[in-house]
Amino acid sequence: MSKTPGPGGVGSTFLTQLHQLTTKTTTTTTKPSRFSGAENINLVAVLRSKSSLRAPSIDSPLSLEGWSREEGNQPAIEPEQLTTWLTSTYPPPHRSIIIIDTTSSSLIAESYPLFLRSGIHVVTANKKAFSSGQSLFDEIYRITTADPHHPLVYHESSVGAGMPILSTLRELLATGDRVHKIEGVMSGSLSFLFNNFMPLTNKQELLPWSSHVLEAQRLGYTEPDPRDDLSGLDVARKLVILARVAGMKIDGPDAFPVQSLIPKPLAHVGDAEEFLKRLPAFDQEMEALRLEAEAEGEGEGEGKVLRYVGTADLDSGQIEVKMVRVARESPFAGLRGSANLFAFWTERYGSEPLVVQGAGAGAEVTAMGVMGDLIKVIERVGME
Amino acid sequence: MSKTPGPGGVGSTFLTQLHQLTTKTTTTTTKPSRFSGAENINLVAVLRSKSSLRAPSIDSPLSLEGWSREEGNQPAIEPEQLTTWLTSTYPPPHRSIIIIDTTSSSLIAESYPLFLRSGIHVVTANKKAFSSGQSLFDEIYRITTADPHHPLVYHESSVGAGMPILSTLRELLATGDRVHKIEGVMSGSLSFLFNNFMPLTNKQELLPWSSHVLEAQRLGYTEPDPRDDLSGLDVARKLVILARVAGMKIDGPDAFPVQSLIPKPLAHVGDAEEFLKRLPAFDQEMEALRLEAEAEGEGEGEGKVLRYVGTADLDSGQIEVKMVRVARESPFAGLRGSANLFAFWTERYGSEPLVVQGAGAGAEVTAMGVMGDLIKVIERVGME
Repeated sequence: MSKTPGPGGVGSTFLTQLHQLTTKTTTTTTKPSRFSGAENINLVAVLRSKSSLRAPSIDSPLSLEGWSREEGNQPAIEPEQLTTWLTSTYPPPHRSIIIIDTTSSSLIAESYPLFLRSGIHVVTANKKAFSSGQSLFDEIYRITTADPHHPLVYHESSVGAGMPILSTLRELLATGDRVHKIEGVMSGSLSFLFNNFMPLTNKQELLPWSSHVLEAQRLGYTEPDPRDDLSGLDVARKLVILARVAGMKIDGPDAFPVQSLIPKPLAHVGDAEEFLKRLPAFDQEMEALRLEAEAEGEGEGEGKVLRYVGTADLDSGQIEVKMVRVARESPFAGLRGSANLFAFWTERYGSEPLVVQGAGAGAEVTAMGVMGDLIKVIERVGME
Repeated sequence: MSKTPGPGGVGSTFLTQLHQLTTKTTTTTTKPSRFSGAENINLVAVLRSKSSLRAPSIDSPLSLEGWSREEGNQPAIEPEQLTTWLTSTYPPPHRSIIIIDTTSSSLIAESYPLFLRSGIHVVTANKKAFSSGQSLFDEIYRITTADPHHPLVYHESSVGAGMPILSTLRELLATGDRVHKIEGVMSGSLSFLFNNFMPLTNKQELLPWSSHVLEAQRLGYTEPDPRDDLSGLDVARKLVILARVAGMKIDGPDAFPVQSLIPKPLAHVGDAEEFLKRLPAFDQEMEALRLEAEAEGEGEGEGKVLRYVGTADLDSGQIEVKMVRVARESPFAGLRGSANLFAFWTERYGSEPLVVQGAGAGAEVTAMGVMGDLIKVIERVGME
């Protein structure tokens, strides 16, 4: 899914949302619910890759309204320096320090253990810490479950943006249900592509695959280079996070079969433009798959449809990401627009899975997922 | 949806689940995650309508394994006595006291303000406190938001059993999203009836309405008297809770249009048996509605289907429960078995709603919802 233009789309959106939530509104009747403790939040630093904006002390925090107009007043800061600066300027336990990571930086992800060991809570939309090596995941979870006063880490928006996916999975496990299988359409851009390439109701004119890719890119549904979505890596990362939270050990997003939708000869050709120019030559392959799926039905307009699905079978330990043919009654078939869908097959839910679906990408809903986590941290640690 | 036979189905299931969670299992490799603090939970009372089983002191709590085999050792206890006994035997703030209500009793529901004012947390599956008069709802919420140290009330399983419905709605609101509309198939038994009466794929032989009601009752999908489901009151109560949590003021479940599926002449006839015997005389009415829905499609097998839907339009303030004709692509049309579906139309989610669907009734998933709430209370108040 496309990012909001400019650096830090999710970060900016998050700070805007926080400003709205912490401002007393007197003119509207339907003001957003302010959460308990919101008025005690102080913004003390906004960090960018090239500069940082920092409050000199707790008595002069940054303005939630004005931060975006201010230039960074200091050079960029490394995670180690940041930790030292935060813990010395705002020594715990008198204040709770929360780092909010809206980047996709591996460097920052690798610093979570440092943050956490220093007593700093982490709220993050960054998939890297949880979907790269198993050891980083384990280390983070070891620190955050070590004792009753451990710092907290929340990363709801690393899977499905603001949708309650990880919290739902965690609750299933914590309450003693047994999760057999997790399955989903986990990419907004690939959902959009397949829902348009093979819609459930054949009212639209069917167009070749490449024209949908072109359209999706034009509309901002894919990354500027659509191959970043078509590789399936983003879906694989989400699936790794889900499977690990459910207890599986996985070396990383390349440790299991992931079907790339990039034709092999185009994997490394030039730029996005070059890729899109050459993609139509491969339309016949997708067309053959479409006809194959359609032929599996029981009558005209009753065929199966193609969807791009990630599956973690926790009973067998199998995990994979691929194009599948699904029956028209399947919830995957009925998806529209760029909606994501996550299905949990569990012991207690029985023959029908617990399903959560909706927009799983975009700055607004991702920032909202981060905000939800921040509220949970504040509820648990208290803010007075 | 049918209750587990015998008194206190959800209560028994909950205690069984709690026993499993708080027991160290050494033989299985896939043991349930034990939540932090589980080992510090003491069961001090099991209350039934006719008797009560109480621990004399914190040093000799009831056995989570043995409670069901023990007869109540004391007479039933009224809410006032219970409060006095709990707060004097286990004086706060040294211990957190949590009352778990798995009844559907109005009397107990009306005592929540007393419990809460006495510093006792409430976790409940009981719809009554939140779906009856607006003033009781307001009083409960006033107490639980009065100050940072207020006791907590959680009632996730009062709507959609263990599914994350209220927590999702709350997070949308708390993070500043604007909820336009909440819509859903909110009854397992009515979902089962309509999914079978008008399945999306017409592979089954279509049977008259009354035969589905009979079958649903026989399989335990409805209450012993199906009229308890067909009246729509249970759906209305869930809708009241959702709408109120979203900020609406509603006098009660009879303060808005609720379409009863009980033919008027049969509303007060004899018992369930008598009702079921006379129901076939009204099959023609439902058949006419089925044909009407079917005729709205664009070709054979493309017609609309009937579903029983509750809607709260927060923008207009309209709330209602009724049979509606939905297009075949609608997520409501694709429901199977007795699954519930809740859709949240919001500002940030845009053109496609956030949807949660799955089993919304049954002792196991309801008890799991109660357990999830208990864990949240423990996480917030700490248990050491």
